[in-house]
Amino acid sequence: MPNKNISDAILSGDTADIYFSRTQTILGKEGLDPIVVMEIFPGRDGILCGINEVIDLLRQAAPAAQVDALDEGAAMSAKEVVLRLRARYSAFGLYETALLGMLAHTSGWATAARAIVDAAAPIPVTSFGARHVHPAVAARLEYAAVVGGCVTGATPAGARLAGKPPSGTIPHAMVLIFGDTVKATEAFDQWMPREIDRIALVDTFHDEAEEAVRVAQAMGDRLWGIRLDTPSERGRVTPDLVKEVRARLDQAGFPKVKIIVSGGVDLERVQLFRAVGAPVDAYGVGSAISAAPPIDFTGDLKEIDGKPIAKRGRIPGVTNNPRLKRIALK
Amino acid sequence: MPNKNISDAILSGDTADIYFSRTQTILGKEGLDPIVVMEIFPGRDGILCGINEVIDLLRQAAPAAQVDALDEGAAMSAKEVVLRLRARYSAFGLYETALLGMLAHTSGWATAARAIVDAAAPIPVTSFGARHVHPAVAARLEYAAVVGGCVTGATPAGARLAGKPPSGTIPHAMVLIFGDTVKATEAFDQWMPREIDRIALVDTFHDEAEEAVRVAQAMGDRLWGIRLDTPSERGRVTPDLVKEVRARLDQAGFPKVKIIVSGGVDLERVQLFRAVGAPVDAYGVGSAISAAPPIDFTGDLKEIDGKPIAKRGRIPGVTNNPRLKRIALK
Amino acid sequence: MPNKNISDAILSGDTADIYFSRTQTILGKEGLDPIVVMEIFPGRDGILCGINEVIDLLRQAAPAAQVDALDEGAAMSAKEVVLRLRARYSAFGLYETALLGMLAHTSGWATAARAIVDAAAPIPVTSFGARHVHPAVAARLEYAAVVGGCVTGATPAGARLAGKPPSGTIPHAMVLIFGDTVKATEAFDQWMPREIDRIALVDTFHDEAEEAVRVAQAMGDRLWGIRLDTPSERGRVTPDLVKEVRARLDQAGFPKVKIIVSGGVDLERVQLFRAVGAPVDAYGVGSAISAAPPIDFTGDLKEIDGKPIAKRGRIPGVTNNPRLKRIALK
Amino acid sequence: MPNKNISDAILSGDTADIYFSRTQTILGKEGLDPIVVMEIFPGRDGILCGINEVIDLLRQAAPAAQVDALDEGAAMSAKEVVLRLRARYSAFGLYETALLGMLAHTSGWATAARAIVDAAAPIPVTSFGARHVHPAVAARLEYAAVVGGCVTGATPAGARLAGKPPSGTIPHAMVLIFGDTVKATEAFDQWMPREIDRIALVDTFHDEAEEAVRVAQAMGDRLWGIRLDTPSERGRVTPDLVKEVRARLDQAGFPKVKIIVSGGVDLERVQLFRAVGAPVDAYGVGSAISAAPPIDFTGDLKEIDGKPIAKRGRIPGVTNNPRLKRIALK
Amino acid sequence: MPNKNISDAILSGDTADIYFSRTQTILGKEGLDPIVVMEIFPGRDGILCGINEVIDLLRQAAPAAQVDALDEGAAMSAKEVVLRLRARYSAFGLYETALLGMLAHTSGWATAARAIVDAAAPIPVTSFGARHVHPAVAARLEYAAVVGGCVTGATPAGARLAGKPPSGTIPHAMVLIFGDTVKATEAFDQWMPREIDRIALVDTFHDEAEEAVRVAQAMGDRLWGIRLDTPSERGRVTPDLVKEVRARLDQAGFPKVKIIVSGGVDLERVQLFRAVGAPVDAYGVGSAISAAPPIDFTGDLKEIDGKPIAKRGRIPGVTNNPRLKRIALK
Amino acid sequence: MPNKNISDAILSGDTADIYFSRTQTILGKEGLDPIVVMEIFPGRDGILCGINEVIDLLRQAAPAAQVDALDEGAAMSAKEVVLRLRARYSAFGLYETALLGMLAHTSGWATAARAIVDAAAPIPVTSFGARHVHPAVAARLEYAAVVGGCVTGATPAGARLAGKPPSGTIPHAMVLIFGDTVKATEAFDQWMPREIDRIALVDTFHDEAEEAVRVAQAMGDRLWGIRLDTPSERGRVTPDLVKEVRARLDQAGFPKVKIIVSGGVDLERVQLFRAVGAPVDAYGVGSAISAAPPIDFTGDLKEIDGKPIAKRGRIPGVTNNPRLKRIALK
Repeated sequence: MPNKNISDAILSGDTADIYFSRTQTILGKEGLDPIVVMEIFPGRDGILCGINEVIDLLRQAAPAAQVDALDEGAAMSAKEVVLRLRARYSAFGLYETALLGMLAHTSGWATAARAIVDAAAPIPVTSFGARHVHPAVAARLEYAAVVGGCVTGATPAGARLAGKPPSGTIPHAMVLIFGDTVKATEAFDQWMPREIDRIALVDTFHDEAEEAVRVAQAMGDRLWGIRLDTPSERGRVTPDLVKEVRARLDQAGFPKVKIIVSGGVDLERVQLFRAVGAPVDAYGVGSAISAAPPIDFTGDLKEIDGKPIAKRGRIPGVTNNPRLKRIALK
Repeated sequence: MPNKNISDAILSGDTADIYFSRTQTILGKEGLDPIVVMEIFPGRDGILCGINEVIDLLRQAAPAAQVDALDEGAAMSAKEVVLRLRARYSAFGLYETALLGMLAHTSGWATAARAIVDAAAPIPVTSFGARHVHPAVAARLEYAAVVGGCVTGATPAGARLAGKPPSGTIPHAMVLIFGDTVKATEAFDQWMPREIDRIALVDTFHDEAEEAVRVAQAMGDRLWGIRLDTPSERGRVTPDLVKEVRARLDQAGFPKVKIIVSGGVDLERVQLFRAVGAPVDAYGVGSAISAAPPIDFTGDLKEIDGKPIAKRGRIPGVTNNPRLKRIALK
Repeated sequence: MPNKNISDAILSGDTADIYFSRTQTILGKEGLDPIVVMEIFPGRDGILCGINEVIDLLRQAAPAAQVDALDEGAAMSAKEVVLRLRARYSAFGLYETALLGMLAHTSGWATAARAIVDAAAPIPVTSFGARHVHPAVAARLEYAAVVGGCVTGATPAGARLAGKPPSGTIPHAMVLIFGDTVKATEAFDQWMPREIDRIALVDTFHDEAEEAVRVAQAMGDRLWGIRLDTPSERGRVTPDLVKEVRARLDQAGFPKVKIIVSGGVDLERVQLFRAVGAPVDAYGVGSAISAAPPIDFTGDLKEIDGKPIAKRGRIPGVTNNPRLKRIALK
Repeated sequence: MPNKNISDAILSGDTADIYFSRTQTILGKEGLDPIVVMEIFPGRDGILCGINEVIDLLRQAAPAAQVDALDEGAAMSAKEVVLRLRARYSAFGLYETALLGMLAHTSGWATAARAIVDAAAPIPVTSFGARHVHPAVAARLEYAAVVGGCVTGATPAGARLAGKPPSGTIPHAMVLIFGDTVKATEAFDQWMPREIDRIALVDTFHDEAEEAVRVAQAMGDRLWGIRLDTPSERGRVTPDLVKEVRARLDQAGFPKVKIIVSGGVDLERVQLFRAVGAPVDAYGVGSAISAAPPIDFTGDLKEIDGKPIAKRGRIPGVTNNPRLKRIALK
Repeated sequence: MPNKNISDAILSGDTADIYFSRTQTILGKEGLDPIVVMEIFPGRDGILCGINEVIDLLRQAAPAAQVDALDEGAAMSAKEVVLRLRARYSAFGLYETALLGMLAHTSGWATAARAIVDAAAPIPVTSFGARHVHPAVAARLEYAAVVGGCVTGATPAGARLAGKPPSGTIPHAMVLIFGDTVKATEAFDQWMPREIDRIALVDTFHDEAEEAVRVAQAMGDRLWGIRLDTPSERGRVTPDLVKEVRARLDQAGFPKVKIIVSGGVDLERVQLFRAVGAPVDAYGVGSAISAAPPIDFTGDLKEIDGKPIAKRGRIPGVTNNPRLKRIALK
Repeated sequence: MPNKNISDAILSGDTADIYFSRTQTILGKEGLDPIVVMEIFPGRDGILCGINEVIDLLRQAAPAAQVDALDEGAAMSAKEVVLRLRARYSAFGLYETALLGMLAHTSGWATAARAIVDAAAPIPVTSFGARHVHPAVAARLEYAAVVGGCVTGATPAGARLAGKPPSGTIPHAMVLIFGDTVKATEAFDQWMPREIDRIALVDTFHDEAEEAVRVAQAMGDRLWGIRLDTPSERGRVTPDLVKEVRARLDQAGFPKVKIIVSGGVDLERVQLFRAVGAPVDAYGVGSAISAAPPIDFTGDLKEIDGKPIAKRGRIPGVTNNPRLKRIALK
């Protein structure tokens, strides 16, 4: 059954490089429609993402194709074939741009997420980067972050795509409108369902350590954690701030209140926090994942009507890769 | 009239950070709905893009808001306010993620495009990067590249969004299927409308200089140009290759045939070609634009019910920026 | 009249390299006591300091010597002769270690101070570094800092030596004992003489911006300024913090309250604050001056009983330096 | 019994930051004198020095205080508590500047000395740096160098403080006055007590290797060693020079004459000499120790009248450090 | 029997530094002709070359000398004595320039060759650098390259000196004159003796991979290998090009045809080819060997008429080196 | 008239890459002998040297060729044609290796010499590097150094080739044999013709400054200069040593005695001496010239029987270079 995520614009070739639709026209006029093998490979090492969406597209658009692929989330090497298609060229030629784009964009995100998740482990990482990408791909970003190892994302659409509950605390805007961190947190507590963790954002009005203790005293056992999001104008969240807040919460009798760190968290920062033993309980990561560059994927014709072929610079014929698995499209 | 580009997922908040919809719920329960001023600013210098789409969203979702903004394509400085919204918070709070994402993603692309376009000028640059981004934003990428100065993009959807005709030559796949560069080019010439430039891709089977002359001799005056796309396995397109192909075409009597360069073209490469005087007639640029990182935008509440306010680290109250223009939403 | 600053330990040679006193003994036994010329020069460019103390020492210990010297505070070049002594060797040979040490240590401090003072100008700089040096030279450090351009130091002894009133605000310890920044500042205001500026330290308990406004509201016109001394654990004093505190003070009606910045202020930091236009009114500088390395000075015999001489590596005879002035010792 | 090294200027607070004496005044007026705990810690790793002098000061000025401290010469880590004071604040508040300065200045020297001593071991290192510091702290420098591992210093006062005999050879000035290295060395030999080693300085007039042999031939068994101090104008003392002088002395029948190297010896230089096997018997080190930057120490109030407290950025309450030992002041 | 390679210009001293012949004149006039020991050592580590030619020179010019030397091709350390001469000074003084020059120039080449040969092993390396040196030393260069481990050189004279058959393929000029790679290769095959390997140069007119297959198909089993020499204008020979040509030859049925790589091959390039597993069968190396800097050799008199001596900076007397072997000159 | 410098080995092709002689054989068998144009160009900027020798070779071997060339000593740019030959290929094909080698080796030397000569100007530079190259090219090295701007070389053969008198002082060996610098210099003075400058080498036995004065006092007006050649073991010749020797000579009454500096003099060193104003009167430069890498020259066939041609990577046909001059071979 075709996946609803594949839009008409993709299926119609409206988002394809136009030379592919022109090629389809010309080949049709010339009566050329060979059975070809296309192999797709990445330009650098990474985590494969988007392959499931690609298969959904092929199910819908080229159900007769023979498809071999690596698994979603698999580690892949530079130039390793991750997808092999065997079909009449007319069945999928128009979708090369879309196939590559799905893989490129989301594998870039998944790969960046994996690096940070590995550095932070076993401390969980949540994707907070929806605000850095166009809303048309925000859910895809969060899905890719989860493929890369994040525990979830922050949008309903993204979390749903990844099969996780979305994660959310309290934005600065809400604290500002309530005019007080404790009041905002108490209102959150009053109106939100029980199953949502109460996480207070503590850097809006006053000193973070001071607010953390204040909100803990007001909320008691209902407080799950506090979030530190100190802006760069105030020196960002430092490892020492985390240590101090932890110590002050402990001294005030709140050893169970967790500390979530967000705001400019990247790989280097996570490594620093780990190196100095900052007692972080969870990370929220934004642009270190969402601004990761796509991984360039290339699709090469390697066989035409059974004959090995390749453009200059590439080796003709099917490339051996025992890791590939046959995918049933129908 | 609302723009059809704003999808239901955006309008429903499905792609918004969930804490914004929770905030709307809580504020509604508490009966809080102040008139607020939100200011949005970028984290680094760049070219503003996406503001028109943001305005479309506001027209549809928050028509009563007072909006001041910079123009699409304007140069902007780090921390300069590019958009100021004055409205009841309930009117737009849910769209903060979408507003920021539209600006962040497309301004990143437009900014990268501008740098390359400036370096190449007056040689025209076309965006060839649709294959590196998810097809759901491929058109937005090409639109942003044109905002940044590219002459057009390669997909129908992107070019239409930018108000340009799409650009396309011949893909390697078509040459491989025809089995010969000249045959493929002649077929293109036979079946394509007259107004489309005939541009032969000459690195598929044989030496580029050899093929360039062969195809020129076969096509005569009908050939507009040739495209060099030598892969890195063969040393990429070098400035000397361009000079040699130019010389061999000239010696063979084809001084009017243009040379288009693609394949790994980035800012540094364009500067090199310029420095050594390589006779390039047009560039096709992919990941140097499409893989540009988003520009982080931030939205700050600066006034609530007429009272200046700000979170720690920011200066309370409306920021003066005489470059902003009032936008009529209705 | 001998200066009381020259201690018996110096005059007795107790702090001199012992080979100089042994040399005196041996030359005495041998009946050798030529009239010699010694020239003293620095190993690198800098600001000369300590020459007045050296002259005091010579006045007391070798009043018959002929002395030519540069002025206290003069800029000097590497290897430039800053002091020339002509006397019987027995008159001053024992003091070579002391002469060099006075110049080396204090010229090092004065030179570092000058660099920061020049970078900060016209914003005044005060030396806060007494705590990094042994108390036996704390006053000399502050004197040297003033020679280098600082407006004053923080200790009575140092300021007196430099002919300035000492500068002091409120230490963290006092705020902690009072338990509140406002109370501590009000107590300071109540008990200190009118001529001492009221400067509140605002980073002890709460957010700096918040405390700055609180103390301004409590003190009114009596508050001269506030001091920001945010520790590195909290991201140090950033330029944006200064801008924000300035803005919040202005918005609260206190545009006359000055902002003093201390805590890790060094040359690079001052240059950064200047570059981004942070509205600092005064700097307190510690280890960037107090930890400056001494400037190595060397004393060479260049003439013995009228005959030019020098050790290998140096040029025999008196070096011409028209900048030197004859000093009257008696 | 109070140590005579603590001067009146320190005891009177004349060299203290003036805000401490003002604080004493204000607290006295307000009748505030809590029992407090102050903890002192360094800003970087190093060798602790000056703690004995600090204890002397406390014995004299605050005999009722409870003191826990690391040992003189102990290795210490950044931020490790090296001294904990519990007393009424009035008992020691005035001495914070002095305490910190004693530790900072001398620990800086001891730490630099340790690095060089470790690199040179088992070759002994003597401190020759008195000439780079003010004579008021020359003895403290040499004491610190010995705490750091040097065998002794060069001044009577410094060596006495360190409980070692001072080390001295022959200065260039004496050789120049005698006009001949051999004559100067013979005079030294004639007039100096037997227990002082005869060490000839051999770079004043002639080639070092030539002079070394000449002086050895003149002095015979009475010569303990020669010192190489070649100035930078002549290429400094190179490892090859040491090897050559050793070989020429050996060939001339003086294998027991030792070679002392001075002049610009620093850590990098000692490592070079070691790496190439230069036969050095002793090093004299000047500015590599004497110009070492102080180590910044900080004193934090951590408890007031039994209640844990700390300024922002620090963790309230007493810090656990089992390495601290209780010191009896009376 | 004297070696004919020692030219009259060398024997006459015409190519010697003139101060040596003047010295001979003066010593003769003065009647001075001591028996001296000269030791020769290199300035850096390397492979000794030229020692056999030096011995030939000494056999002819100074047959009475006592000679100890390392072997041709031996690894030598910086400053290690590689040659010791004991003779009347008049017997060899005039030849110091020649001795040093023979060693310096050829040891430089042999040392560079060894580094590349070691990196390439077991893939053979041939010296192709005769064109970078004056023809008067072209044979010496190739001899040195073979001493360094190359399998042979490209000139008859050089290969003869090294005792190897010269290696040669086909120059671009010949392919250009024939106008076709296949024709040129076939002509080579027709006219050259059977024992010469048939190696086609395949980058002159067409794509390398295309030409490689064409020439293999034309020549069949008679083709020993093909040579890739792609110029920098076309991106040099890349590892991927080698892989592709190998694959295309294999697919076309020519797995035995070898691939020779030349053109800018240096140590870094060989390491790259090895790291990525490029299937190279032989390297031709030019300027990476031929442009290697000479190794500076120095000759020191260390003994005169039985007495150890040396100039300043060197250690008098014969240096122990058990690796030296006595050479019989007669 | 043929130049005698062209050896039989060159003329016979014995030093040519063997593929050129094989090519001659094959072309002869095939009856192919087109009139071709070969252009020769360097791989980098530099000073052209060796062109006169090349023309000598062509005069002797290919007198019918049409030759266009730049002048000996001309500045040339990377890839600029410096020599164009038009002749039957059989007339010169065998000499390509020799032509390129003559230009490559000597242009490398001349180019390095020019850089140092320009940096030292107007202080003269002499080539002392014969000992670093094989004696078969020692004269060519010195000739090239003079083409690059040196005033002369040190060997009779080299100086004769360059049309200059050779330059020579006194070697260390001679001083060592005489056992005294003054005696050696006096012997030189006694036995050498009047027209040879008396230059004493002063670093052999004693301190350079000491010896310089001693020899000046002994020689009086007959001393032209002294040479400083301090070895690296003694710190090389430093700028300060030159200044000191100058000062001590002047003070002793010998302001006319010149100072020659040798020993490790390279471009960086000359720039240092200039920057600090060291009073050098002449430089002797060795490996900074003699170890310069050859400049890679390439010979391309650009026309065959009147038809433009080139291998891939080069532009077919004769390259325009108006700087070339027609050379008459007969």
